[in-house]
Amino acid sequence: MSIGFELSDGFGKMREDYVFAEAGRKVAAFTERHPSRKIYRLGIGDVRGPLFPEIVDALSGACREMESAETFRGYAPASGYDFLREAIAEYCARGGIEISPSEAYVTDGGKNILFDVSSLFDCDVLIPSPTYPVYADGAAFFGKKIEYLVGSESDDFAPDPPRKGRYLIYLCSPSNPVGEALGRDKLTEWVKFANDSGSLIVFDAAYESFVFSGVKSIFSIDGARNCAIEVSSLSKRSGFTGLRCGYAIIPSGLTTASRSVSRAFERYCASSDNGVAYPVQRAAQAALDPSLDAKTLERIREYSLGALALKKAAAKRGFYVLGGSSPYTWLKCPDGFSSWEFFDYLLSLGGICCTPGCGFGEGGEGYVRFSSFAPLQSVDEAAFILSEILRKL
Amino acid sequence: MSIGFELSDGFGKMREDYVFAEAGRKVAAFTERHPSRKIYRLGIGDVRGPLFPEIVDALSGACREMESAETFRGYAPASGYDFLREAIAEYCARGGIEISPSEAYVTDGGKNILFDVSSLFDCDVLIPSPTYPVYADGAAFFGKKIEYLVGSESDDFAPDPPRKGRYLIYLCSPSNPVGEALGRDKLTEWVKFANDSGSLIVFDAAYESFVFSGVKSIFSIDGARNCAIEVSSLSKRSGFTGLRCGYAIIPSGLTTASRSVSRAFERYCASSDNGVAYPVQRAAQAALDPSLDAKTLERIREYSLGALALKKAAAKRGFYVLGGSSPYTWLKCPDGFSSWEFFDYLLSLGGICCTPGCGFGEGGEGYVRFSSFAPLQSVDEAAFILSEILRKL
Repeated sequence: MSIGFELSDGFGKMREDYVFAEAGRKVAAFTERHPSRKIYRLGIGDVRGPLFPEIVDALSGACREMESAETFRGYAPASGYDFLREAIAEYCARGGIEISPSEAYVTDGGKNILFDVSSLFDCDVLIPSPTYPVYADGAAFFGKKIEYLVGSESDDFAPDPPRKGRYLIYLCSPSNPVGEALGRDKLTEWVKFANDSGSLIVFDAAYESFVFSGVKSIFSIDGARNCAIEVSSLSKRSGFTGLRCGYAIIPSGLTTASRSVSRAFERYCASSDNGVAYPVQRAAQAALDPSLDAKTLERIREYSLGALALKKAAAKRGFYVLGGSSPYTWLKCPDGFSSWEFFDYLLSLGGICCTPGCGFGEGGEGYVRFSSFAPLQSVDEAAFILSEILRKL
Repeated sequence: MSIGFELSDGFGKMREDYVFAEAGRKVAAFTERHPSRKIYRLGIGDVRGPLFPEIVDALSGACREMESAETFRGYAPASGYDFLREAIAEYCARGGIEISPSEAYVTDGGKNILFDVSSLFDCDVLIPSPTYPVYADGAAFFGKKIEYLVGSESDDFAPDPPRKGRYLIYLCSPSNPVGEALGRDKLTEWVKFANDSGSLIVFDAAYESFVFSGVKSIFSIDGARNCAIEVSSLSKRSGFTGLRCGYAIIPSGLTTASRSVSRAFERYCASSDNGVAYPVQRAAQAALDPSLDAKTLERIREYSLGALALKKAAAKRGFYVLGGSSPYTWLKCPDGFSSWEFFDYLLSLGGICCTPGCGFGEGGEGYVRFSSFAPLQSVDEAAFILSEILRKL
């Protein structure tokens, strides 16, 4: 006996599998066959811990508040507690971006809203590719017409805006998987295109903390407040992958022809979920406190050093490689290797797990991505092994 | 300058406002005008705390684990940690329902999945009304054709299944807002209808812990494993409204004509979010431990006593009133009062906040809902005031 209707059309339009899951299964099978081999886990972009003690103190303190009737907190405000929205605005201000706390919307990480955002609009979707697969999965799930703008070596995987069209545009900078940040000129072109065409940019700034000297936020570009929202996350910056906290910045004046986008987003949040756990919001407030900026930067620099080591290892063997302003390195596979073939080759020969580039959509086939969240010494070892493998090819 | 496309059709089909927000604004305005008046907050169904110390210990202990590299946890498994899935299965077993841990999917509360679930299927949606507004908001947002089955006094707001049609059916038992649980006979009729018609029942069991002797789970009805999923939450049972943890039970054999529902749900979760915070999952595990069952039941009974006190206060004045097997009481407004008029009347005369029945959809106009999560003494006072107000009408 079965249900008499099918899964939604949109469900069928998502790709059949999620590349991280498949890579994970392969690595698990490999470690089972070779239990004594050392494995370098440079695949999925999960951080290593631990959380800074100041963050854990804030988290634990908030937990303890839940134990007393006087300080217990039930449902959180749908858009987040004011204390955190203020901390986000102050964090942005330290980066030179002025926003009002009421323009910051607390979310349970970036992924959920990146998946959902196209469902709020009557729009086609434009996705520079290769990129984070969640954009295309979300747009496909919600039945959107998707156009891809496929990057390549000729534009260093940072394609120019199209000549025409009106879209919801996903931009990711620094880019997952390519590892490079878009420069001010390129971002200015995108903002001009969006304003001229009536498009909306959804700017995924999940890796903004890895930008040391360039542009961290779309809102540092003139005109972006009329055509963009920004989605950010504490996952990579502060190690929150296991706690789940991020935020969207929606300029108060951003509108469709007839409606305020921020009011629509508030309405959507109020109907569709119940906010982020109170202790997690306190932890996020602590993570964004200026007193932790120096320590945070130090950890981010360590991840970056790993990415640079991998980049150098490949570059010195003459391979095309990008990265360094994010935890990711993007390497062209040696001649004759597909993404999955080179994935298998690196795993079996060097114990190095990466992520096949084909999992990031069109333009990704023939490349692999490394993430550098493993301990630096381990990434350095992997970089040496990689360099030796590439030397022999 | 504005974005050149509009909000989605589905967004426009959600109702313009969310009744709890509007009621909240009215109460806030009232308290500002009358700062010294005592207010009985029987509106929104938020629990009062505190959390039991055992739950806070588990929560805090897990927070501390995040402080050490050895015990730090990053991304959670998309469907939840095994320790919690096992605790959910054991909790169900204590209630007489046998499920496998792999049939329990951890979510960040019930609301999100109740909003999203229709997006997974190519279906029309059937909603017995009045009910929790999130069902209709979600189905409207995702562009589903919705039919309402409007309850009334003649069926004590528990309408029979329709004669024909094939739907995704939302059932809420014990019912929000009516406060009564569906009996075994009625649930058997629903399961028979679903199996005969190829429909899918989404059973919202958020208030199952308030059922002391009747049916807590749809899976205690024969045949339900072929036609139902159940969504439950720790919000009301264990005071988790501010922590966010719930679960869905999806039978492993449940299928559409061609696909497994649980595999589809796993795929959807893996693409659209990153799971529930690790410390919250540890807290949920503690909350479901059998050692807390007695204390939990005691607290639930106290909430129930409040609901019964309100019910008795209205009944003894001859008013039509339902409730008692949930934290909710459902009262017919006195002749000539609309829901919002009686809401205003109770607030200004008695300082009692309730929720206007019209906010729960068709069939709700002319009724109000009380929640009984306030301290019992306060609910008892409100019951006395209500009884006096009704006496004079």
